[in-house]
Amino acid sequence: MRIASLVFLFLLFQTVSAQSPEEQLKKLNISLPAVSQPIANYVKFVRTGNLIFLAGHGPTGADGVTITGKVGAELSIDDGYQAARTTAISLLATLQQATCSLNKVKRIVKVNGYVNCGSDFTQHPKVINGCSDLLVQIFGEKGKHARAAMGMNSLPNNMAVEIEMVVEVE
Amino acid sequence: MRIASLVFLFLLFQTVSAQSPEEQLKKLNISLPAVSQPIANYVKFVRTGNLIFLAGHGPTGADGVTITGKVGAELSIDDGYQAARTTAISLLATLQQATCSLNKVKRIVKVNGYVNCGSDFTQHPKVINGCSDLLVQIFGEKGKHARAAMGMNSLPNNMAVEIEMVVEVE
Amino acid sequence: MRIASLVFLFLLFQTVSAQSPEEQLKKLNISLPAVSQPIANYVKFVRTGNLIFLAGHGPTGADGVTITGKVGAELSIDDGYQAARTTAISLLATLQQATCSLNKVKRIVKVNGYVNCGSDFTQHPKVINGCSDLLVQIFGEKGKHARAAMGMNSLPNNMAVEIEMVVEVE
Repeated sequence: MRIASLVFLFLLFQTVSAQSPEEQLKKLNISLPAVSQPIANYVKFVRTGNLIFLAGHGPTGADGVTITGKVGAELSIDDGYQAARTTAISLLATLQQATCSLNKVKRIVKVNGYVNCGSDFTQHPKVINGCSDLLVQIFGEKGKHARAAMGMNSLPNNMAVEIEMVVEVE
Repeated sequence: MRIASLVFLFLLFQTVSAQSPEEQLKKLNISLPAVSQPIANYVKFVRTGNLIFLAGHGPTGADGVTITGKVGAELSIDDGYQAARTTAISLLATLQQATCSLNKVKRIVKVNGYVNCGSDFTQHPKVINGCSDLLVQIFGEKGKHARAAMGMNSLPNNMAVEIEMVVEVE
Repeated sequence: MRIASLVFLFLLFQTVSAQSPEEQLKKLNISLPAVSQPIANYVKFVRTGNLIFLAGHGPTGADGVTITGKVGAELSIDDGYQAARTTAISLLATLQQATCSLNKVKRIVKVNGYVNCGSDFTQHPKVINGCSDLLVQIFGEKGKHARAAMGMNSLPNNMAVEIEMVVEVE
């Protein structure tokens, strides 16, 4: 009985003590890519007070290849979801550079997700969930953000999605 | 003459003493709907410091019906104006949940209004005024906000407009 | 030799001591236009704490003429670049009104640039550089901002670009 109690307490502890974002990244087997240079005259993030404003990021993978095309036409909704997830990883790489450690994130405040698509597309939320789902997996409650998702008739270099965010840090 | 003076002072007082946002809502006979669940993996608002970032909201009425279609094609500019007003009421419901009372609003800081429309549409400001006019009616000087209005080729679930805002609170 | 050293030190000083934004404006021979009235029920900026949120501005020159049309179709990329530069000047006029002096700017935090264009356009970054290049010329390091650039199927009054920004001030 005493051992059962200890096991119970151990399991409870495992559940209650949320893993840190950095641990969570490892668990998901995600290694953040090097932060690429901006494609024009701007910087990837600016910090003002406790807020970090991140530039619009695109779905460029660790291999340097960017996912392009219109979601709902050349790309399926699943492709779009993966593009949004890839963009989230790119945003996290920039955020790690900005904060030294993702453990310093207090809250993902706002996410704006822009989907490159046709005028009859209606499933933007499902696409941008590719970003939101990962943020919540990594940060738990701190990852729950306000969000806007929209359809754009075009994006820089025909990238499939563009996502920007505002983050509160310690 | 003395009575005339009193009447004058009373009228002056009525004008000068701005009604509270909550009183103003009642006067306009607007009852805020229950805040609906987000349609994807995000939350309706996040507070950071004295700022509240609200998610993109759509024109869903108290009856749960969302106004859909492209403004300037299936919908007239007047329809778009009403959709923006309905969206404002939805934003206010979320803001009331976030603040407990709209009387705690110090300033509507920023409104971004996205209009679902064709590529030849040019009257976005008239549409988004449906939101702005109501905010100024409710909050007076505190309701005067910076704003951007734009045309989107598509929006989630084909809603007619999507509006997000940043609000400063006590 | 002694004179040569002094000349060297003077030149070094000229380079190192960044000119103030107001001086830089003069050097570039830019005189800020009067701030125009908003085209709808909103204000051109709102300050909250040390942040100023500027409304979406368009490419209206000192002569009151607005550059209209779709970039990549009726307008070339160069035209779009000039439109973005004109919009930046309009934003600076509002910012000067908000701050009394551009010298009080601590950081251009965020720029969102919306390009009026067709669905096959991909060169948004080159267009919005018209704004970013000027901001960096005027403010130097303080002018380096996070940015998002996107393609819109339409903008108010068919203006070629719309740009909004967030600025940190003293």
